Amino acid sequence: MSLDRLIKRIDAMHNPSVVGLDPKLEYVPQFLQDAFFEKEGYTLEAAANAILAYNKALIDALCDIVPAIKPQAAYYEMYGWPGMRTLVETIRYAREKGMFVITDGKRNDIGATMTAYAAAHLGSVSIGDTKVEPFGADALTVNGYLGTDGIQPLLEICEKQDKGIFVLAKTSNPSSGEIQDRKIGKKPVYEVMGDMCEDWGSAHIGAYGYSSVGAVVGATYPEQLADLRKKLPHTMFLVPGYGAQGGGAQGVSGAFDANRRGAVINSSRAILCAWKKEPNCPETEFAQAVRREAIRMRDDITAYLHR
Amino acid sequence: MSLDRLIKRIDAMHNPSVVGLDPKLEYVPQFLQDAFFEKEGYTLEAAANAILAYNKALIDALCDIVPAIKPQAAYYEMYGWPGMRTLVETIRYAREKGMFVITDGKRNDIGATMTAYAAAHLGSVSIGDTKVEPFGADALTVNGYLGTDGIQPLLEICEKQDKGIFVLAKTSNPSSGEIQDRKIGKKPVYEVMGDMCEDWGSAHIGAYGYSSVGAVVGATYPEQLADLRKKLPHTMFLVPGYGAQGGGAQGVSGAFDANRRGAVINSSRAILCAWKKEPNCPETEFAQAVRREAIRMRDDITAYLHR
Repeated sequence: MSLDRLIKRIDAMHNPSVVGLDPKLEYVPQFLQDAFFEKEGYTLEAAANAILAYNKALIDALCDIVPAIKPQAAYYEMYGWPGMRTLVETIRYAREKGMFVITDGKRNDIGATMTAYAAAHLGSVSIGDTKVEPFGADALTVNGYLGTDGIQPLLEICEKQDKGIFVLAKTSNPSSGEIQDRKIGKKPVYEVMGDMCEDWGSAHIGAYGYSSVGAVVGATYPEQLADLRKKLPHTMFLVPGYGAQGGGAQGVSGAFDANRRGAVINSSRAILCAWKKEPNCPETEFAQAVRREAIRMRDDITAYLHR
Repeated sequence: MSLDRLIKRIDAMHNPSVVGLDPKLEYVPQFLQDAFFEKEGYTLEAAANAILAYNKALIDALCDIVPAIKPQAAYYEMYGWPGMRTLVETIRYAREKGMFVITDGKRNDIGATMTAYAAAHLGSVSIGDTKVEPFGADALTVNGYLGTDGIQPLLEICEKQDKGIFVLAKTSNPSSGEIQDRKIGKKPVYEVMGDMCEDWGSAHIGAYGYSSVGAVVGATYPEQLADLRKKLPHTMFLVPGYGAQGGGAQGVSGAFDANRRGAVINSSRAILCAWKKEPNCPETEFAQAVRREAIRMRDDITAYLHR
């Protein structure tokens, strides 16, 4: 079961965190941008190549202490098809370094189309007799608004190819409650979605008690997070919103079970931009600053869990 | 207002339909596939280039009779970054031929990330002093599960750059009701989402009474479609599910207002694969068969509207 692979890495590194690789061009140090602009002009290709170099340096600096990365598809699409090539190359590089890769795409559609998304991001496509992995991630975030037949094609790939998904339940943004907190009967929509995650995952439970179907639950709503942890015993949580969005170690502690498992906490901007915030950090040392911030985050979260 | 541009084209062509360009490789005639495989091997690039050639032939055959195309992002992502390059080139070609392009991506995320998606699909990005359109569509489908702050960045681009969005309300798939039909108070979730579309669009209403915020409502649920038409007077509908999914002309007629406006009906597979179904159609004449099926669909829908 795919999320077992993630949990194993978390256990081995004593670090339940994932670094969100959401590389806006302005996060990339100027010297690195300039190197590509001088060669390739002010083009999407140059921007995408600068981002790839930045990502690789970050992966090198993080792969022995952080179990997983979560590239956000939007920040690659923003640089067009060269950006998508950078996404492919980033995923490949991180997996070569042993990292677990969660593509944050929040994809959703009808069954036939989800079969295409599942093949694109987690599976492979056949071209003649050749099988190719278009993006090749270990897990994908998805939106469950369309119900079971939009999830089914993913479950098949999770089973056959040892992959995972994380379904949006309660998102970290300020207006998430507009739909997600509204009550269906006695339950808020996010809990109905959480119940569906338990259901979808019920035939796919791994060695740690968690299925290959996880849920996205924001660090910015610690009460709902702790409440869902109790109600969804087989659903691992991907928790965004720690760091730049305001979530803290105390807030996310409720995402974990009694064995300190069951959640992986994401931070993106606070880690990617660490080199901008650290006093007197030369921009050439961006990767070391990123590593220091990732260690600080790990220690912040684990210290709280081991009180 | 962007959807005014779409409505104008629909009026001019007397055709409220959109062709879904969802080109699985097996929809492309073998002779066209082989031409690229011989040159480029069994690669993602060859597959993506074969699809681009197929798309261009379809656009040539349709651009004087069909107002819009709707490329489905999943079927391009399935062929990796070369597939995304085919998406860019397909959009560019269709727009050069005067067609309105709706990218069907069902994108959704928190505000900061939706700013990136909005720039990617509808807007532009700055690289140094250069502005580039990464994908450059006229409209994008989105999922509103995250609420207003995930929609706001799109509204800004709709306003400034004359673009539009279509938000999922009631989707065409069999299990759409699992979440969308559940009641929040007295209203089903899809109607709450529809009300939000009216609200989001209220400051962006164009000359025909429709805003730049449309909704996706499936042809496979004709009662809900007719009901929502009455309740959402400023929200244009993008209606999938006609044709291969089972929706018919009578079913979609309820999507239109008294002026026979307010909806655009999509068909994908039934049109793209017309050349496979037409008796004795040589595969070299695929584009003509596609054109005949598009005309049949137009006449089917408009005949019903003008009874």
